Amino acid sequence: MKINCLKSELTGAVAIVSKAIAGKPQTPILSGIYLKAENGQLELQATNYETGFISRIPAEIEEEGQVVVSGRYFQEMIRKLPADRVILTVNNDENTVHIQSGPANFTLLRMNPAEFPVIHRLEGTLSFTTKDNILRTLIRKTVFACSKDESRPVFTGCSLQFDHTKLTMAATNTHRLAVRTETFDTEIGQINVIVPGKFLNDLLHYMTSEIPTDVTVTCSLNQISFEFDNLYLTSRLIEGSFPNYQRVIPQNLPTSAVVDTQAFAAAVDRVSLISRSGEYNIIRLQFADNQIHISSNNPEVGNAEESVPASIEGPELNIAFNALYINDALHVIESKQCRIGLDRPLSPVLIRDDGDPTFLYVATPVRTQN
Amino acid sequence: MKINCLKSELTGAVAIVSKAIAGKPQTPILSGIYLKAENGQLELQATNYETGFISRIPAEIEEEGQVVVSGRYFQEMIRKLPADRVILTVNNDENTVHIQSGPANFTLLRMNPAEFPVIHRLEGTLSFTTKDNILRTLIRKTVFACSKDESRPVFTGCSLQFDHTKLTMAATNTHRLAVRTETFDTEIGQINVIVPGKFLNDLLHYMTSEIPTDVTVTCSLNQISFEFDNLYLTSRLIEGSFPNYQRVIPQNLPTSAVVDTQAFAAAVDRVSLISRSGEYNIIRLQFADNQIHISSNNPEVGNAEESVPASIEGPELNIAFNALYINDALHVIESKQCRIGLDRPLSPVLIRDDGDPTFLYVATPVRTQN
Repeated sequence: MKINCLKSELTGAVAIVSKAIAGKPQTPILSGIYLKAENGQLELQATNYETGFISRIPAEIEEEGQVVVSGRYFQEMIRKLPADRVILTVNNDENTVHIQSGPANFTLLRMNPAEFPVIHRLEGTLSFTTKDNILRTLIRKTVFACSKDESRPVFTGCSLQFDHTKLTMAATNTHRLAVRTETFDTEIGQINVIVPGKFLNDLLHYMTSEIPTDVTVTCSLNQISFEFDNLYLTSRLIEGSFPNYQRVIPQNLPTSAVVDTQAFAAAVDRVSLISRSGEYNIIRLQFADNQIHISSNNPEVGNAEESVPASIEGPELNIAFNALYINDALHVIESKQCRIGLDRPLSPVLIRDDGDPTFLYVATPVRTQN
Repeated sequence: MKINCLKSELTGAVAIVSKAIAGKPQTPILSGIYLKAENGQLELQATNYETGFISRIPAEIEEEGQVVVSGRYFQEMIRKLPADRVILTVNNDENTVHIQSGPANFTLLRMNPAEFPVIHRLEGTLSFTTKDNILRTLIRKTVFACSKDESRPVFTGCSLQFDHTKLTMAATNTHRLAVRTETFDTEIGQINVIVPGKFLNDLLHYMTSEIPTDVTVTCSLNQISFEFDNLYLTSRLIEGSFPNYQRVIPQNLPTSAVVDTQAFAAAVDRVSLISRSGEYNIIRLQFADNQIHISSNNPEVGNAEESVPASIEGPELNIAFNALYINDALHVIESKQCRIGLDRPLSPVLIRDDGDPTFLYVATPVRTQN
């Protein structure tokens, strides 16, 4: 193998695929980046068995071939190379890769490409193309509600229900639930899967184009992939069945409040400074007199209180929450106003985005002494 | 106590004095910030006994007084307050401080100001005023050479030798030495002290004005203080005597090289990527044929080599160093070129800044197999 490519493009591609390398790889080969030079392109792959990332960049190829290099050293080296172009050479007689850029010469030990679990393009039972901004909104408005507790894998992922022209994403840690739906112009198929939250967060990190870009989503019974620009990101699905969350979405809520999203979020954030060091981070909310009065109390620190104006209809109510469960939802609501629906002090709250009727969020209150 | 001040000024002052609070304070009172309202000013103090920071801001004072608040909570709270102004009220009948800003109300438990080790202005045996940019250069070019090893305190500080109109700063970890001298127009006195490196690094962090600003340095036998703008930073000195480093500065060096500082630093940085994970981070330098050839080798990773052009006079030489000891010096040299003086493979190197004759740096080479 002998190729010549732009340092900037190689740096970018290496930075992306490196994210698929586990902190402590299961086997040495998984600490590597697989490089394949073919048809005017250099393809880079990395995987931890759960997820796999592929990136492709244009390259002048003098000799095709493949090689696996240490992800860590390759990344550090490429980033620091002095010239605009990089020449990679594999001498098949030696156990090394030679990297040359301007006056700098590196020789890195290489690994056996035959040992690398090469990622193959997924042949899915379902495949459709949409825009990255549509997927970004779906993911951003749900993935934060996932659980971090690996002992119950189903809750660490987002449920994706593909239903003809409709995709519903949902996530819950059993104490709170976020749901968002998108309707497409065309039939996309029917399948229910659970996608790891961590992978969806990675995806958010890379789907950052300012102009809406095509993304092809392919899904099988145990795997999902997203392809856009020169990237291909794939992940195993989480096995198990997602709970039927429809029944926990409260209906007929007698008390409702409409409040400025940012003002409410900022006040909750401030007041919860006092409770944050406590075990449950509890804030109390009082819905009365067209304002939401937020308070918290921590015997070791002090107390805090603040009111925000709100349009309140229905009976007055005092209710307490983990402050994080309220603020996480407010942070994904982009509209100026949000709507809060309430029943009794121990019944779940329903929070909705005034400008996005397909989003809903449910959180369970906490029981307090007073 | 009752005062009213600008949130932005209070936030800035709290952020600075907070840095003097130890991660694990020796006593609870040292986790606090001492506030004193007097003569149209709010004074903030924090200390860990070793160092103490004072910051003053203008305030409308309705009632003078003093109070100690939790540094951690006060800092987080002030930063998040919603309005431009902050009202602090201490009700002497209660054990609390009340903080009000716009609609937000916080009540923080307070501590007893009588317990706080209030920092008093140092009456020094030596006091002079200079510009911050002059002190910055002195500190920046020496403090990096300090040791981090707390078991030998003398080497964790910088030596400051005040000698009439001359101030010489020096730091060493016994393997390398950095020295910088400044000559003043006026007599500044005579005293030799050792100032903690950590404190000097803090000082660098705050002495950041773009326009040269007056700094008053006051020094006694066991303490030093720096006063500028509305800040007063003071530190205990390190006891002990600094080694006589003059005798380790090599004279009559037969081989000399003049090299582009940045090009040399970048090449050393790249080549040392290979050796960095090794125990001694060794790079080899070959001075010959008007170039410095830099190489490193790590049997588990690979090898690297690069040459930079240099004007070399005197005998050829091969020598090896801890890469960090070379790069640290190159990073503080601001001139385009630096001068490297060498004798034998196991004799110290002398590195000088082409544009700053009062700076010198000495590093001991390492012995290698080949």
